[in-house]
Amino acid sequence: MIVLCNDDGFRAVGIRTIYKELAKYFKVVIVAPEMEQSAMGHAITLTQPLKVRKIVEDNEFIGYAVNGTPADCIKLATTVLFDQPPELVVSGVNQGGNFGTCAIYSGTVSAASEATIEGIPAIAVSLNSFENFNFGFAAEFGAKMAKIVLKNGLPDGVALNINIPAVPYSEIKGVSITRQGKSRVIETFDKRVDPRNNDYYWYAGEIRIDEVDEAADCFQVSNKYISITPVHFDLTSYKAIDELKKWDITL
Amino acid sequence: MIVLCNDDGFRAVGIRTIYKELAKYFKVVIVAPEMEQSAMGHAITLTQPLKVRKIVEDNEFIGYAVNGTPADCIKLATTVLFDQPPELVVSGVNQGGNFGTCAIYSGTVSAASEATIEGIPAIAVSLNSFENFNFGFAAEFGAKMAKIVLKNGLPDGVALNINIPAVPYSEIKGVSITRQGKSRVIETFDKRVDPRNNDYYWYAGEIRIDEVDEAADCFQVSNKYISITPVHFDLTSYKAIDELKKWDITL
Repeated sequence: MIVLCNDDGFRAVGIRTIYKELAKYFKVVIVAPEMEQSAMGHAITLTQPLKVRKIVEDNEFIGYAVNGTPADCIKLATTVLFDQPPELVVSGVNQGGNFGTCAIYSGTVSAASEATIEGIPAIAVSLNSFENFNFGFAAEFGAKMAKIVLKNGLPDGVALNINIPAVPYSEIKGVSITRQGKSRVIETFDKRVDPRNNDYYWYAGEIRIDEVDEAADCFQVSNKYISITPVHFDLTSYKAIDELKKWDITL
Repeated sequence: MIVLCNDDGFRAVGIRTIYKELAKYFKVVIVAPEMEQSAMGHAITLTQPLKVRKIVEDNEFIGYAVNGTPADCIKLATTVLFDQPPELVVSGVNQGGNFGTCAIYSGTVSAASEATIEGIPAIAVSLNSFENFNFGFAAEFGAKMAKIVLKNGLPDGVALNINIPAVPYSEIKGVSITRQGKSRVIETFDKRVDPRNNDYYWYAGEIRIDEVDEAADCFQVSNKYISITPVHFDLTSYKAIDELKKWDITL
């Protein structure tokens, strides 16, 4: 069984498109947030109870909607919702790219890395467009990667973060194995005043892809290649360890 | 100026204790969540406006309370709240350890790594206890590390994740530079029934420290050493890249 999650919510077009594609080959169950959870990162819900609602459409059971985050969905899916843990977790297809520094904010990527914490192989699939979203090819490529991962397995603790350029299939140049790049969102906040005369701020910002390293996911996607970055949940900067060991730190 | 954040909320005893300690040496301003944001990971708020409320106590301005996540607080603190960006971000003192796999869920650690995304050096300080919390020494050690980091700087994109054992000062054995360990929370969910007869689940779980590698943060903290793990926001598993390049992936 494949568990399918996302951060756009269980009604999103992206998850529905890949659901249909995966269902041609596998048993698939959606376990996804009831509401949009974009940019929720690896948040989990400790202080509220989680409600799990069966999704039945056209008299067919297709999964569960959860009033929580993508990571909550995966924790439930790997512990209490099923008799057997899933063989694979697929997260997406997300509306919008999840590469560069933005990957760390992504609920879509976090659902996949949460699965690896629970020992389940996982892939995250994102389409690099917020507007022109034809999920057809992204869903097909995601299903193909699901087959490959089920066959090859994945290194322990590693998930795949897959980003697909939003261009017609004929324009996609190939597939690149990449690292997380350094492109990031340059934040701005709209400052506004509410009807009771209190200031408030609304997050805005624009992604800036100024990456020139060919090994980076953002470079490859903006050059019309599919990027596949292996990700893990180890935040250690190993390079910095030797530097810190030289410091004189006492109690 | 130092900006002080946390995920337990601006009223928490941990942040107040280190505020007093830092204020002996530096100009410090609190920019912290209005409500507890534990386990919010690197979540940011896109779909709601953020309200920023001045905190004035005993006629003294001490900072801002934000109705958002720790990462939201840092984004506001580094862009719109001040004329100059802070020289250093300190996050904590958190009530409870943030080591092993748990670091990825931590709002406290995410506030520090968000600062590094914005180019500001940062440290996260956590006391490994949920019950017996005497924050005095943790606050003193955090202030000492703030001084060291302001003097030495930090490698680009690196923050320090500091965990302090909750034992009397005389029992602390030393300071270790560590990597993020593999200890994790073994989840359970309490299944309950609400007054309207709907099932719901409440997250529970217990941390299991079965790490035997001396280089790991969780090993050191459970052996009464302070652990300092350099962390970054690069999720790439570099080891897995070569393995994936051998795979036959076509369009």
